[in-house]
Amino acid sequence: MALFLSLPMRRALEAAREAASMGEVPVGAVVVRGTEIIAIAGNAPRRLNDPTAHAEMLAIRAAAATLGTDRLTGCTLYVTLEPCAMCAGAIALARLDRLVYAASDPKGGGVAHGARVFDQPTCHHRPEVIDGVGEDEAAALLREFFAARR
Amino acid sequence: MALFLSLPMRRALEAAREAASMGEVPVGAVVVRGTEIIAIAGNAPRRLNDPTAHAEMLAIRAAAATLGTDRLTGCTLYVTLEPCAMCAGAIALARLDRLVYAASDPKGGGVAHGARVFDQPTCHHRPEVIDGVGEDEAAALLREFFAARR
Repeated sequence: MALFLSLPMRRALEAAREAASMGEVPVGAVVVRGTEIIAIAGNAPRRLNDPTAHAEMLAIRAAAATLGTDRLTGCTLYVTLEPCAMCAGAIALARLDRLVYAASDPKGGGVAHGARVFDQPTCHHRPEVIDGVGEDEAAALLREFFAARR
Repeated sequence: MALFLSLPMRRALEAAREAASMGEVPVGAVVVRGTEIIAIAGNAPRRLNDPTAHAEMLAIRAAAATLGTDRLTGCTLYVTLEPCAMCAGAIALARLDRLVYAASDPKGGGVAHGARVFDQPTCHHRPEVIDGVGEDEAAALLREFFAARR
């Protein structure tokens, strides 16, 4: 199935798998500008002793550092799980053009659930949002990870 | 008036002033455990080329690095402005015991406005929230900063 996914989402799924292999909840993220991958990151709060080190945050920070700016205008973020409120807030602050995410997260998501960050009048930049791309694989990774820990 | 404020909030206001002197929106944050200041940071997204580099995020990350953990249980975050959705999400993820903030932010806040992150069922940790401490000074700093740029 991954063969039918775009390269950025396949890379994000690989980053999620790598995160799992290091004991982190398997989520991966990629920032793309045009056809160029600017940053790839896996979830790493435990490994980095950093509660903010979700895959999206690390990818956004790496992309901004690479481009030498605090605005990722013209960029798309691919991530394997619906971003939480923190990450959705960061996506808006970074002025990303587009967010593409795989699995939905009814329990912790902040885009289509809970805080619905982009739908608030306090949100000053709303990216285009595309969901469900690579959902089956991303959700399977998460299920396997949590099943193995029960 | 600052004389009547607690030491952590005075330090947060100093960090906000320093941020302004570097051209950043004046917001400062401090993480405290017991009576010990663990981290102090000023807002720095432009200086660091990092859209996530709000004062709260930098203080949380520094405190977690110092304590060698991704959980700031037993800690309080002092910040001069109501946290945005990103920062409120990070505060919940970091499991901070308490949030003390000065000025309210109806246009961009994510605690008492907009996303109201801690009030959502997707929020898995809700800190005690104390607001209005040092409000006059923090709001004056922001007003002066934006007035000077008009």
